[in-house]
Amino acid sequence: MNNTIALANEKVIEMIKSARPFWQDVVPAGEAIPELREKKILLHAGPPIAYADMTGPMKGACIGALLFEGWAATEQEAVNMLQSDQIAFKPCHYVGAVGPMGGITSQSMPVLKVKNTTHGNFAYCNMNEGIGKVMRFGAYGEEVQTRLHWMKDVLAPALSKALKRFEEGIDLTALMAQAITMGDEFHQRNIAASALLLRTLSPEIAAIDITDQERVEILSFLGKTDQFFLNVAMAYCKAAMDAAHTVGEGTIVTAMTRNGKEFAIRVSGLGDQWFTAPVNTPQGLFFTGYSQEDANPDIGDSAITETFGVGGMTMIAAPGVTRFVGAGGFDDALEISNEMAEICLSQNPALSIPTWNFRGACVGIDVRLVVETGITPLINTGIAHKEPGIGQVGAGTVRAPLPCFEKALLALAQKYPA
Amino acid sequence: MNNTIALANEKVIEMIKSARPFWQDVVPAGEAIPELREKKILLHAGPPIAYADMTGPMKGACIGALLFEGWAATEQEAVNMLQSDQIAFKPCHYVGAVGPMGGITSQSMPVLKVKNTTHGNFAYCNMNEGIGKVMRFGAYGEEVQTRLHWMKDVLAPALSKALKRFEEGIDLTALMAQAITMGDEFHQRNIAASALLLRTLSPEIAAIDITDQERVEILSFLGKTDQFFLNVAMAYCKAAMDAAHTVGEGTIVTAMTRNGKEFAIRVSGLGDQWFTAPVNTPQGLFFTGYSQEDANPDIGDSAITETFGVGGMTMIAAPGVTRFVGAGGFDDALEISNEMAEICLSQNPALSIPTWNFRGACVGIDVRLVVETGITPLINTGIAHKEPGIGQVGAGTVRAPLPCFEKALLALAQKYPA
Repeated sequence: MNNTIALANEKVIEMIKSARPFWQDVVPAGEAIPELREKKILLHAGPPIAYADMTGPMKGACIGALLFEGWAATEQEAVNMLQSDQIAFKPCHYVGAVGPMGGITSQSMPVLKVKNTTHGNFAYCNMNEGIGKVMRFGAYGEEVQTRLHWMKDVLAPALSKALKRFEEGIDLTALMAQAITMGDEFHQRNIAASALLLRTLSPEIAAIDITDQERVEILSFLGKTDQFFLNVAMAYCKAAMDAAHTVGEGTIVTAMTRNGKEFAIRVSGLGDQWFTAPVNTPQGLFFTGYSQEDANPDIGDSAITETFGVGGMTMIAAPGVTRFVGAGGFDDALEISNEMAEICLSQNPALSIPTWNFRGACVGIDVRLVVETGITPLINTGIAHKEPGIGQVGAGTVRAPLPCFEKALLALAQKYPA
Repeated sequence: MNNTIALANEKVIEMIKSARPFWQDVVPAGEAIPELREKKILLHAGPPIAYADMTGPMKGACIGALLFEGWAATEQEAVNMLQSDQIAFKPCHYVGAVGPMGGITSQSMPVLKVKNTTHGNFAYCNMNEGIGKVMRFGAYGEEVQTRLHWMKDVLAPALSKALKRFEEGIDLTALMAQAITMGDEFHQRNIAASALLLRTLSPEIAAIDITDQERVEILSFLGKTDQFFLNVAMAYCKAAMDAAHTVGEGTIVTAMTRNGKEFAIRVSGLGDQWFTAPVNTPQGLFFTGYSQEDANPDIGDSAITETFGVGGMTMIAAPGVTRFVGAGGFDDALEISNEMAEICLSQNPALSIPTWNFRGACVGIDVRLVVETGITPLINTGIAHKEPGIGQVGAGTVRAPLPCFEKALLALAQKYPA
């Protein structure tokens, strides 16, 4: 059986490496994902969870989404609707989507549309709102609502027009190959990719038919939103990993995600099963006035970046991040990436890392290697306040919990008896 | 005397570190530098040189400048004027300016205006034309002329308008502090700084009163000109080093420059004297169809970046460059920067390099240390074809020649007798 597994894993890895996701459009979530139009339903990060079980930031984002959609007129009305089960829920991952932190996505929100041009599949992610009081971290007040409406009414239609001026969309692999040489690891740090994206988009934004005021607003927003590319990278990684998952065999992790309570993984050879374990809480550095006590447990679909092999897995590409998240200096970054390479089967030549002496980013987290070594993937992550309505309070790192890999290994042992 | 020198050098270094050059404007060279309006005169890179002694790329650029100014209608007419001494010459460095490669600058060409807001002095540099057939590498044909006229008539006035929308201009130190964490060393690699500059400028470019077509052209040009920031960085370094030079004492190199024949250095304690030696020829990688035999000897004022402490001095910040210039991998980049640190007196906390475990860029090349160790500054450089009219053929590294440091040390020994 080991040979069967090895061949399958090779195929999975080949699918990941050969993926060529292009950013093609920005569309309303309800247009991309028809299920969202059928009823009052919200997508959320991580494996399935009921409203009552959600942690603060996800609850806050639910309130924000109901206000945004006009399903509720007040915070209290929103809470009442949520508590009385008038709102359905579904994981983003079930519908080809991903969402950072709470991951809450509703029908009118714009989503990024990414096509894996090699394998033909699509992936979606909502748009990055910038920093400060933002819905993905659980804020839902007026500032959040005003920005979300501007993103829906101004930013999204303009980006859609601009993107259609590219023949096939924007080649994200080429852009990421450059950005990984510029200190980005695509989870905690996306300043280079965001800046490269802006320089690719800005001539088209200059060319489309919008008002001068809108042009200024859009270029200002993109120019100061250092994490804009995070959501693009998430859709990229989702598109690649979903394609690889269709192999249907092997021991490679094709998704890692967290809902604030449970961490869940999906494995190439184990179909639609999710293997879960309680999440850990990120450790890191906190904004002034906040501390570890305020930290919400690990949350968000953004660990799809680590699943693909970037983020915390390629800490060495972004030694600047190690300081930002309180994980040490250059040598610590190197140590982390060397450790992560122990649980991965291959490396991605498309993402060559100068600071790693031009080694490629990790590819193919093998469930067997994780359990054998006890090394679990390290994830770079933002830290949300545990109460709804507050938002981001820091940034840090967190480990995927070992038990979900152990559960998956048991299932693999049944599927592939010795 | 050693104490006098040490105190002077401390002051020089403090001046370099405390410099805060802002990019404030783009103006015609003849407006910034009145000498350029007095007669038919060209600025050039390096120490003084006559037309007959110039190497190919500088000669080609002279022809290009005469055609651009309309002083000559044909190439032949330009050559005749140049050969019959109808054109005067002066080093850029003599008038507060710098120019990459040939450095040829004439009165109608736009120059970047940078103000050192700490010390009040200004520095100027012509604008980067992008890659391929460009005047700084000695090309002068129609493509070059068309682009230069567009830069003068469209790009420069628009950038001037955009820059005036910033209160004091653009804070280049803040931008470079970010870009040095993104793989730039500001000589061979400026993609991050150029992209960060674009994102700072683009909302203002959207806001100024120009045509939509001009906006598209400008954003496209800035978006694809990876080395746009090189010329900005050169003006930055010139502004900092000129301020430091006013200390008038000490053993620190305040300029390094080459005219294709001679390498010249200026020293903080030795006034306006230049100490020269024959240049070396860069070794590196060549574009398809060209080889080492085609390489022009070392040329350009761009070594002002190494003088300030970036470029080849901080190779470790840009390990991607080591491959581009054929200088090896990550370990080689580290070795080069560690070697350069041996001839420098301090490090710049404003330019912290994550890949160097957050050490600051080198500051203060000490003539005494260069001669004592025999280690000469390593310069990253483009390689021009030795014949006029062809342009860039590669990129590589080159060492400053030791004899100019030895000559300076002799002069220092006279100034500061033991």
